Amino acid sequence: MLQESTSNSTFLYRQVIDLIDDNIDSGALKPGDRLPSLRRMSKHAGVSIPTVRKAYVELERLRKVVSRPQSGFYVRRLAANPLVKPSPRFRASARPVPISGQSLMERVYDGLYQPDVVPLGIANPTMARPAAKALHRAMKRIMTRAEDRSISYAPTRGEASLRRQIAYRYLDSVGVTVEPDNICITNGGQEALLIALQTVASEGDVIAVESPTYHGQLELIDSLGMLAIEVETCPEDGVMLASLQKTLAAHPVKACMFSTTLSNPLGVSMTEEKRSELVELLTGHGVALIEDDVYGDLLFDGRRPKPALAYANNGQVLTVGSFSKTAAPGYRIGWIVAGKHMRRIGALKRSFSCSSGLLQQLTLAEFLASGDYDRHLNGLRPILQCNADRMATSICRHFPASTRTSCPVGGSVVWLELPTGVNAEKLFDDALAEGISTAPGNIFAPCHRYHNFLRLSFGHPWSDRIEQSIKWLGHRTAQLSEG
Amino acid sequence: MLQESTSNSTFLYRQVIDLIDDNIDSGALKPGDRLPSLRRMSKHAGVSIPTVRKAYVELERLRKVVSRPQSGFYVRRLAANPLVKPSPRFRASARPVPISGQSLMERVYDGLYQPDVVPLGIANPTMARPAAKALHRAMKRIMTRAEDRSISYAPTRGEASLRRQIAYRYLDSVGVTVEPDNICITNGGQEALLIALQTVASEGDVIAVESPTYHGQLELIDSLGMLAIEVETCPEDGVMLASLQKTLAAHPVKACMFSTTLSNPLGVSMTEEKRSELVELLTGHGVALIEDDVYGDLLFDGRRPKPALAYANNGQVLTVGSFSKTAAPGYRIGWIVAGKHMRRIGALKRSFSCSSGLLQQLTLAEFLASGDYDRHLNGLRPILQCNADRMATSICRHFPASTRTSCPVGGSVVWLELPTGVNAEKLFDDALAEGISTAPGNIFAPCHRYHNFLRLSFGHPWSDRIEQSIKWLGHRTAQLSEG
Repeated sequence: MLQESTSNSTFLYRQVIDLIDDNIDSGALKPGDRLPSLRRMSKHAGVSIPTVRKAYVELERLRKVVSRPQSGFYVRRLAANPLVKPSPRFRASARPVPISGQSLMERVYDGLYQPDVVPLGIANPTMARPAAKALHRAMKRIMTRAEDRSISYAPTRGEASLRRQIAYRYLDSVGVTVEPDNICITNGGQEALLIALQTVASEGDVIAVESPTYHGQLELIDSLGMLAIEVETCPEDGVMLASLQKTLAAHPVKACMFSTTLSNPLGVSMTEEKRSELVELLTGHGVALIEDDVYGDLLFDGRRPKPALAYANNGQVLTVGSFSKTAAPGYRIGWIVAGKHMRRIGALKRSFSCSSGLLQQLTLAEFLASGDYDRHLNGLRPILQCNADRMATSICRHFPASTRTSCPVGGSVVWLELPTGVNAEKLFDDALAEGISTAPGNIFAPCHRYHNFLRLSFGHPWSDRIEQSIKWLGHRTAQLSEG
Repeated sequence: MLQESTSNSTFLYRQVIDLIDDNIDSGALKPGDRLPSLRRMSKHAGVSIPTVRKAYVELERLRKVVSRPQSGFYVRRLAANPLVKPSPRFRASARPVPISGQSLMERVYDGLYQPDVVPLGIANPTMARPAAKALHRAMKRIMTRAEDRSISYAPTRGEASLRRQIAYRYLDSVGVTVEPDNICITNGGQEALLIALQTVASEGDVIAVESPTYHGQLELIDSLGMLAIEVETCPEDGVMLASLQKTLAAHPVKACMFSTTLSNPLGVSMTEEKRSELVELLTGHGVALIEDDVYGDLLFDGRRPKPALAYANNGQVLTVGSFSKTAAPGYRIGWIVAGKHMRRIGALKRSFSCSSGLLQQLTLAEFLASGDYDRHLNGLRPILQCNADRMATSICRHFPASTRTSCPVGGSVVWLELPTGVNAEKLFDDALAEGISTAPGNIFAPCHRYHNFLRLSFGHPWSDRIEQSIKWLGHRTAQLSEG
């Protein structure tokens, strides 16, 4: 019971926090345990319910507890063995190479569309809480309002109202001024990467990528006949600049393609300071940065950092965004921000796909302008956070103790380092035969480097079936580790 | 008055045809004149109204008259000076060249999106009779039926139901068997051309194109760092095979990119015999054919020829189709048919844009399956045909007598050869200043070859404003021709 005589509510809510903290420290409250209900804690501590709520929300902000909608607050589970270093397999002698592993990639994609599969292999955060109803409403309004125009061609660089909304978000959420005329709408983030890459590089050029990195970047580099070189990447703060510097000195790198926020699969974000240093380093070498920033809106705390774009002033950075990970994957709407390259980008966009879907652009502009997009994100983030927690709990429970995992602070994927010797490709095959799709580590680097790594997704509504699938994966991993 | 005693209605309707024919031959009925109404002709000829209608419809099929909705039947106007030969400027010594003229292309596109412009510069046939209402209805049904799934990712190669519908159309309309698994859905025909080109060629390779040809092909070749070589093309029967043979013997051509039906801007279709010969020739040289077949459904008589694809049996031909010219440009849905290349095509599609919009794919599958697509085409073709006629009449009336024009048998564009010395780029600039968009000849060839050529579109609802714009263009052409 807290001291009843204290009338200062700030002081009281701090006391609730201390009380929970002490209980966690002493082990009375264990990771995954449910906190007392607001009412019970109010009675127990002799403070008002709003004061308890304030304390719990602050504990959530401090990432000590996590709320689950319609259920309550739970002590956060952290990964038992967090990944802290770049993969031990990383060879400092990485050379520019053509991409290998296309056939594995195909098997992964075929697996995703197998009927009734458990979709742990796809990074599709929106499915955890689809915005279909709100988007459908917006689209129906557009159909009525724009009628014939809504099925006709959009301008090459995109519908002006959507470009204005995107520019407004840069200003509103990260304080960065972007001219709508410097935005080109694309067919999702993937086409944005294609156009950005073809803008600054051509066949045979060397492109630096994180290791591990998003397989879609690697496939794209391969499709354009370019070479990839890996840069050491730390699960705690992203691309290692010292390693990048060595790479730039030793190889004719034409461009870097890096995720600055919530990289895929590591889930790591660069600090703003590091972004600034990165841009300075690349500007010094005259190397372009293609900034893949499609997950920026999905940090669990909603505090989006400034994109690297904000630290460039000469068009060195081409930033790629998308609504595929946040709202409507099937709309295929993404964008590039790129000042000085805009003319070339317009010509590439026109020749690669004419323009992007107008109805979807008009719908998203409406969805953003109405505030529905922000409301949707505010609903989506806590569900993803809750799923991340459940995933961590499940992995701890079912995988061998020597498994190490990333600690996601956003997005929808976790990156696992399985015990040495476990063949993740074998695990992938066996799991798919069981109706469970996963993403084996080898698709995340140009050479087959991540034999015993696995990416799992928590971007779907949590279910017993998912829980059972993780259990199955953990047990199979143990078998493979012994075999 | 026809012989009343004849009871054979076939004979009677033939007599009505002969009567009209005689009147046209004698000059009593001039091009553009309205035929007597069904009732008047029925009285005059002493036959029933259905018999007269049957005769008029047959005359339309014979391309002697043209019907205008809510107005009646008119004697068809043919171009006064039809184009019959390849451009006299064609140099037999055409060499592979990089594409020039990007900035002119940009001005053309900027012009298209100028507010309230008269859109004679864009090839957008659907605007003559938009299918928005039927498409919106289909999409709303999909929203209800597929709900959350409708905003999610489509499979890389496309939604199965749409691929089945497309395969069915090949079988039904031209008797060609195509496996749905050999169809890959793309972001419009333009991305299909991109993927097809990147499948069979790479940077620095030589691609043979028609002359003149669709500017989107040229921009694409440029964007991929390839070279274009022009092949002589005849306004009467398309690519000249003898000329192509010489080109293949003299240059390391990697692929040909030809429109087999209703080429843009000439509007010419190859005979089926020629398609077969073309495929044989290219197979002999081991050269791939990228067949641009996006206008096939828009022949005024509705009689689509077999694509060149039908004459290949070893994957030599990659055929590109689209719904952009026939139903919904803003949906950005096209496709490639290509058997042996399908694995590479799947990888390119995934790396270039992941997949295409699912909601649009589901909607089009529904639109096709319901029969709405065919009903829409049956309504669109006669309007385009009527517009083509009005355009021809207008050009005859207002342009200098030495102007030569193509005789469109489908699609939505007419190709004009202006009097020698008229600078079409100047005409384009002057017209745009008047709020009229046009497409100057120079964007239709890799080198600036078509200085005095112009493409005009009749793919919008006919209006006084369009009529006045053509008048203005004709007078300005006359001035430029004198200056």
